[in-house]
Amino acid sequence: MQRTLGTCYYPEHWPEETWAEDAARMADLGLTWVRIGEFAWSRLEPSPGNLQFDWLERAIDVLHDAGLKVVLGTPTATPPRWMLNKHPDMLAVDAQGNPRKFGSRRHYCFSHDGYRAEAVRITRLLAERFGRKVEAWQTDNEYGCHDTIYSYSDPARAAFRDWLAQKYQSTEALNRAWGNIFWSMDYDSFDDIDLPNLTVTEPNPAHALDFRRFSSDQVARFNEAQVATIRQHSDAPISHNYMGRIVEFDHFATGRQMEIATWDSYPLGFLEDRLEASPEHKRRYARQGDPDFQAFHHDLYRAVGRGRWWVMEQQPGPVNWAPHNPAPLPGMVRFWTWEAFAHGAECVAYFRWRQAPFAQEQYHAGLLRPDSAEAEGFAEAARVAAELKQMPDVEHTQAPVALVFDYASAWGWSVQPQGAGCDYFRLVFEVYRGLRKLGLSVDIIPPDTETLAGYALVLAPGALTLSEPLLKAISETSAQVILGPRTNAKTEHLSTPVPLPPAIEGLDVTISRVETLRPDMPIPAEGGGAVKLWFEQLDSTEQMIEETEDGAAILVGARNLFYLAGWPDPTLLQRILAQRAEAAGLAPQVLPQDIRIRDTGNTRFVFNHGPEPVTFNGQTIPPAGVIWT
Amino acid sequence: MQRTLGTCYYPEHWPEETWAEDAARMADLGLTWVRIGEFAWSRLEPSPGNLQFDWLERAIDVLHDAGLKVVLGTPTATPPRWMLNKHPDMLAVDAQGNPRKFGSRRHYCFSHDGYRAEAVRITRLLAERFGRKVEAWQTDNEYGCHDTIYSYSDPARAAFRDWLAQKYQSTEALNRAWGNIFWSMDYDSFDDIDLPNLTVTEPNPAHALDFRRFSSDQVARFNEAQVATIRQHSDAPISHNYMGRIVEFDHFATGRQMEIATWDSYPLGFLEDRLEASPEHKRRYARQGDPDFQAFHHDLYRAVGRGRWWVMEQQPGPVNWAPHNPAPLPGMVRFWTWEAFAHGAECVAYFRWRQAPFAQEQYHAGLLRPDSAEAEGFAEAARVAAELKQMPDVEHTQAPVALVFDYASAWGWSVQPQGAGCDYFRLVFEVYRGLRKLGLSVDIIPPDTETLAGYALVLAPGALTLSEPLLKAISETSAQVILGPRTNAKTEHLSTPVPLPPAIEGLDVTISRVETLRPDMPIPAEGGGAVKLWFEQLDSTEQMIEETEDGAAILVGARNLFYLAGWPDPTLLQRILAQRAEAAGLAPQVLPQDIRIRDTGNTRFVFNHGPEPVTFNGQTIPPAGVIWT
Amino acid sequence: MQRTLGTCYYPEHWPEETWAEDAARMADLGLTWVRIGEFAWSRLEPSPGNLQFDWLERAIDVLHDAGLKVVLGTPTATPPRWMLNKHPDMLAVDAQGNPRKFGSRRHYCFSHDGYRAEAVRITRLLAERFGRKVEAWQTDNEYGCHDTIYSYSDPARAAFRDWLAQKYQSTEALNRAWGNIFWSMDYDSFDDIDLPNLTVTEPNPAHALDFRRFSSDQVARFNEAQVATIRQHSDAPISHNYMGRIVEFDHFATGRQMEIATWDSYPLGFLEDRLEASPEHKRRYARQGDPDFQAFHHDLYRAVGRGRWWVMEQQPGPVNWAPHNPAPLPGMVRFWTWEAFAHGAECVAYFRWRQAPFAQEQYHAGLLRPDSAEAEGFAEAARVAAELKQMPDVEHTQAPVALVFDYASAWGWSVQPQGAGCDYFRLVFEVYRGLRKLGLSVDIIPPDTETLAGYALVLAPGALTLSEPLLKAISETSAQVILGPRTNAKTEHLSTPVPLPPAIEGLDVTISRVETLRPDMPIPAEGGGAVKLWFEQLDSTEQMIEETEDGAAILVGARNLFYLAGWPDPTLLQRILAQRAEAAGLAPQVLPQDIRIRDTGNTRFVFNHGPEPVTFNGQTIPPAGVIWT
Ligand SMILES: [Zn+2]
Ligand SMILES: [Zn+2]
Ligand SMILES: [Zn+2]
Repeated sequence: MQRTLGTCYYPEHWPEETWAEDAARMADLGLTWVRIGEFAWSRLEPSPGNLQFDWLERAIDVLHDAGLKVVLGTPTATPPRWMLNKHPDMLAVDAQGNPRKFGSRRHYCFSHDGYRAEAVRITRLLAERFGRKVEAWQTDNEYGCHDTIYSYSDPARAAFRDWLAQKYQSTEALNRAWGNIFWSMDYDSFDDIDLPNLTVTEPNPAHALDFRRFSSDQVARFNEAQVATIRQHSDAPISHNYMGRIVEFDHFATGRQMEIATWDSYPLGFLEDRLEASPEHKRRYARQGDPDFQAFHHDLYRAVGRGRWWVMEQQPGPVNWAPHNPAPLPGMVRFWTWEAFAHGAECVAYFRWRQAPFAQEQYHAGLLRPDSAEAEGFAEAARVAAELKQMPDVEHTQAPVALVFDYASAWGWSVQPQGAGCDYFRLVFEVYRGLRKLGLSVDIIPPDTETLAGYALVLAPGALTLSEPLLKAISETSAQVILGPRTNAKTEHLSTPVPLPPAIEGLDVTISRVETLRPDMPIPAEGGGAVKLWFEQLDSTEQMIEETEDGAAILVGARNLFYLAGWPDPTLLQRILAQRAEAAGLAPQVLPQDIRIRDTGNTRFVFNHGPEPVTFNGQTIPPAGVIWT
Repeated sequence: MQRTLGTCYYPEHWPEETWAEDAARMADLGLTWVRIGEFAWSRLEPSPGNLQFDWLERAIDVLHDAGLKVVLGTPTATPPRWMLNKHPDMLAVDAQGNPRKFGSRRHYCFSHDGYRAEAVRITRLLAERFGRKVEAWQTDNEYGCHDTIYSYSDPARAAFRDWLAQKYQSTEALNRAWGNIFWSMDYDSFDDIDLPNLTVTEPNPAHALDFRRFSSDQVARFNEAQVATIRQHSDAPISHNYMGRIVEFDHFATGRQMEIATWDSYPLGFLEDRLEASPEHKRRYARQGDPDFQAFHHDLYRAVGRGRWWVMEQQPGPVNWAPHNPAPLPGMVRFWTWEAFAHGAECVAYFRWRQAPFAQEQYHAGLLRPDSAEAEGFAEAARVAAELKQMPDVEHTQAPVALVFDYASAWGWSVQPQGAGCDYFRLVFEVYRGLRKLGLSVDIIPPDTETLAGYALVLAPGALTLSEPLLKAISETSAQVILGPRTNAKTEHLSTPVPLPPAIEGLDVTISRVETLRPDMPIPAEGGGAVKLWFEQLDSTEQMIEETEDGAAILVGARNLFYLAGWPDPTLLQRILAQRAEAAGLAPQVLPQDIRIRDTGNTRFVFNHGPEPVTFNGQTIPPAGVIWT
Repeated sequence: MQRTLGTCYYPEHWPEETWAEDAARMADLGLTWVRIGEFAWSRLEPSPGNLQFDWLERAIDVLHDAGLKVVLGTPTATPPRWMLNKHPDMLAVDAQGNPRKFGSRRHYCFSHDGYRAEAVRITRLLAERFGRKVEAWQTDNEYGCHDTIYSYSDPARAAFRDWLAQKYQSTEALNRAWGNIFWSMDYDSFDDIDLPNLTVTEPNPAHALDFRRFSSDQVARFNEAQVATIRQHSDAPISHNYMGRIVEFDHFATGRQMEIATWDSYPLGFLEDRLEASPEHKRRYARQGDPDFQAFHHDLYRAVGRGRWWVMEQQPGPVNWAPHNPAPLPGMVRFWTWEAFAHGAECVAYFRWRQAPFAQEQYHAGLLRPDSAEAEGFAEAARVAAELKQMPDVEHTQAPVALVFDYASAWGWSVQPQGAGCDYFRLVFEVYRGLRKLGLSVDIIPPDTETLAGYALVLAPGALTLSEPLLKAISETSAQVILGPRTNAKTEHLSTPVPLPPAIEGLDVTISRVETLRPDMPIPAEGGGAVKLWFEQLDSTEQMIEETEDGAAILVGARNLFYLAGWPDPTLLQRILAQRAEAAGLAPQVLPQDIRIRDTGNTRFVFNHGPEPVTFNGQTIPPAGVIWT
């Protein structure tokens, strides 16, 4: 399959007379795909039942006439105002008990049956009309953006009770599973169970975790309803555009429902608003984005899409929504595009064709300025389009390293962090960054992975409850495996298993005590570096590979199975990963701070993420520069 | 008109036997004016309709008998508790949906018709009784203090819908003006439009801006109702006492309704609680107040009062309401008084005569201690009274520099800052400070100014939408004019005009891109200094006056019209302002950091705002010192 | 009375088969006391009226059979879920108006009559059944934990109105006492008075203070109802387990109702979450706890219990609820136990016997791990048990220094701090720390103390309203007495007395002005050190003992009575305290930073709180080391 480019287009924002010229310019630029429709419900159905699909058909025709392919989005992230008159209680409710009102987007509760039926209805109507016409589909838009997974509404409460009743069958079973005896929290009836907000102090973590599982299931159910509807009328592949660092629902669950995973990549916005990093780091990468954040998501969505994935929205210039919104370094739009292709993207689509001069995102760049002049990203996209002609098709290669990512663990850590700063995504991402700084390419794998065949090095930091298939795969692999910290430390109800964790066959390790550390009191490791934030005291007869200056175990194990008792700082992490990678027969190399490498198929890409030129392996790579061989 | 002093007095706090002695001491001190009554509703009308005005008449008589003049305040900022029994829904509602309860002050919603009628009623009764008796009026007290302009109540919602219906006439027009198509936010009925709080993510900026315009109009309407009522029974001038850095309503709009503008000047409290400044700056000026903050407001309220303005409440010692409440440096009470007179004040009234030993402001100093002994400010006021005898009357002189201040722009920046720290008041105030540090006196002018005659230098930083009259005045002036950043960047609906901004006749400049900057990544200017926070990329054929080290335009223009593409730091600002001031024929001089100058009439005042003596032009000025010539 | 050890045990968490072994291990370890039952309501009464006390009787029997004594807790901190079906409005309401929901603990409003009756009912049933069987009682659990004293519920509002009506008898009296004239806040009816939350700006401080007095009274009333009920059926001593730095209710008031005061001592959690200290201090003591925080509470609860006090919950390892939860230094569990005994504890009970693997406190250590293996604290407790055999019984000695602690003053400072950081507990605690750093042992005394006989040095910093008995005791004592800052500065209604404070007989001092200071602008004292945060300007003819570099009075007085005009920093405080201690005939010595001394009976204990060994008086004390002679 050929690597392609695309863009997001809102014909409803512009006079119909200008569509054809827009389409012609898109085609000239070398774009293949155009995503449309995902916010257009008020024009598709201005009043209940008053369907106005003709303009959309004309827009599709114009695009097709220019040789472009169309991704049609279902408009369910933006129900029109009249929907609230039909379903006044469809709004999500925040944790403080306030309805989250109409006036922007994503103003619905996933648990509202009436709204879900409306979403299916408009999806069905669109699929009936355009199912044979468009080349791909997108469901809704950015599930979870603006903290929209958790709703504390009446419909959510009722649905949660049903969900619990189906899961536990009896309150006795639920009381036992949650340990409700602890503070006399036992329930006699599922109808007595409330949502876990506004409790006097923290709710039972099992209660909180089940609410998160339920909320994730509600998203999957909502999405599946649309997918099933589209399938009845269309053979085109279906996708959803995920958003960066949204971990409140299980993307693997929705991913399994669809052919393609896509995500919306805003490197500069993400650096500012959702990355733990020092001010120095944020300043250094303010115009390039973090060197690993996009790559992590590329690898994550390759897993979510089981190989097939796109960037559906690629930042093309400054955005409008982060605390600070600088312009990218010249060349970064091309750079980001190539980075996605290096990680296996089939398509990179720029958000958006033309900057709109009104409403919420006026200062969010497009490929065109509001006056239709070319913005800076335009020429960079054109350069990629030209370069693509020389490149092979999308290549799939298994990476040598596998890193488990488990959404339920993110919820578990969030419910029960035990210390400020103890966050699952952060832990996994730091390990990912450590691997990348050694020049390694990584596959992110789901927690129910059944085989580790082909991998030389496998890590599952912080995965709270290892699944049976993964435990079996670990026991069977000859790869170097590093578990911990906190791996397999919990039952599915977020209780502590007895015998104590990690209880891994072939590894004589028992966690006898957990402590969390002030950021200013890391525990130095004997060989340099330190453990920070999270540290476990081990009872173990395994060989001590790394220890603290006081002689406490940090890394123990033998043969190919190792347990890591704490959260390593970058220095310690590098040493551990390099040793294991070498033991695994890989050739780790410590890269310059701004350089990252990605191998795919027969191509090795080398990226300079820094603001200055870097000489690497004899070649000087300019800022925003990428070379491939 | 003579410069006078005054004080704020609460006869209802003290035994009637003591009034005469208080009045005698006030007269002895050299005071002319006494403001009374503005919080006394519960004594004027202890129960509905039970009017008790006699005590107030006696108090006025006592003051008159001592030769004092009276400003009578309408007591509408403190409706008594029984009012809530009549109008249970009169309370404002905060953005979270909670009523803002009785128990302090300003507990009313400007949109509540019933309460507005009550306010008019008590105003009418007071005006009927005292209209020919008192020498001046004050409406209400400190509109906007304690964040009281925005209310999310049911009456506010209903009034907002009416306001929108009157403004737009049809929802089609409103949808178009707001760009509601953007996220399917279109409305079919004005009754479907809600207030813009509690939306899932940011509301449409046009929606938010209209709510702010509406809220400002509600204040003007509330005030006008009182003013019109007083006018029917009194020829005395009417005023309102504005509060520092309240920009949530348009003071020019209320200012036009009344003869005099007054404001409440609390230099130390303001430094602590409403000024962006470094800790070092706050520490240096902790006992003196910021060197420019009071001056800015003096100049602002001179404009709001069309020349006639007072300080109605002057800090006389420590206050009680800021995060920290230190005592002023000895001499500062005199200093602040003279500063106000230097900027043209007709009267400076001290808040308050005697420190009250009970209720909310017990630790707020007065001229007297609670035990009636003289507090420290007393002697300083006496010194001013003595000095005033040697001084000419209030002098009015047009300043050589005009600086536009536009409340609607403050709302626009607040609704759509595009980056943390990007605030309109802050921008204008920094420019004002820059001008003052060059020894220049400044007139603040409203955004609908029709002529710039008499000015040598004109600035309108951040004024989002230049009015037709001002655009005309700019095109006609021969003054040096600096526009930008963000000047004329928006339509009145906060959308981006196409052709792109600033679209100023005679200036070939187009803003092709906007970016906002982390505080730690200023962009260095070629000649020193830097652009911070906000930076625009220009397409321009104009001469480049200032540029970044990378060659991007910072200041362009020719003849007398210039565009500034970013937010200058103090170094860059000083260079730009000094150059333009010189080109304008002014004689800018870089003052020592603590020195400020103000020219009025034939008098030049020189103030030392620092904690140490400063030698300036051969004269040594002590801390808290002012000299005039 | 012998010093004893104990533990907190939850038989309801564990299979009944294991109880006997647990009891045997407890006895073997050398424990005397076991606290049980305080969270077990849902097992004692699974549905309304369905009493299941047999298991508890069997658990008590098992413990008794092993030779252990039992403290039985009333389970009223954790009413079961069915209670809400009977009393839907029993939940407390937070200051934002949201009910604080079921799902954790302490989910009740102290003002709900129905719930109080239920609490009395279950208490009566337990007392009837076990009144002659158990050796001691505990009421409820940790009143005030999780901010549970203040409730803004409808029952609280109604009860507050009643309380005010009983206190003031007429609204005229209330209006006068509160100074409601200030902003027309007068009331015509007690039914018009609301709770002081959600006011537009700060409520009248008198209103706020009365709400705090009322809330404290509600706790006392709730507790007294249980105490009176138990007394009818039991002669065993009654206690309550207070929590660290909870000042929202008057512990002396509840303390007077019971025989024993106990508190829950979590040194590491408290250091992290409720102590003002620099990051360096927190890091240094992260594994030991603050050197004075526990001691302060030991001395406080000795006063609350009129000599009889315990640690009911002693931290035995890492906890789970602070921002960071490190493990204690080896030896600290023993160290903390001895520290309590040094201050006169009768018993130290470890929380908890066995770490529970489920629900909210999974990562909170016990003496046993969840798998019943010994955790680290186990051996340390065993060592204390062995050491105890060599020690004399609990010794009571009056300390040479008395320090007044007054809960109402804590409320007054909180309602009216006048400056950020001005907190009563913090002030008193800093003075306490200063005394301890001079090697002095301290008695904390209540504000209604009637005699100071036996004390050489007495301090009452920040005690806002000195009681008649204490004033008399001060006038009669020959001890060195230091009053101020802010001592006797307020009436009981939090107004300022006229004549002005402090109005102490025999001390010619008048506070003419109060100022609060930025943390970065301390006022240097002539002899070194400085005044910080709070500073009073004095009119005084007394001798000046300490003054600022500018000559303003800091400490004045003569003979044995002194007034301190500001909040001293540690250097100034040390000088003042050392001088007065010497004048009092004590022998203050400046201790090394980590060393603290406590004298009791004939024993002197010396503690090293630091992470390194310290040589003191020729002896080297290791980290976590204590020596006694
Ligand atoms: Zn997006
Ligand atoms: Zn005021
Ligand atoms: Zn506890």
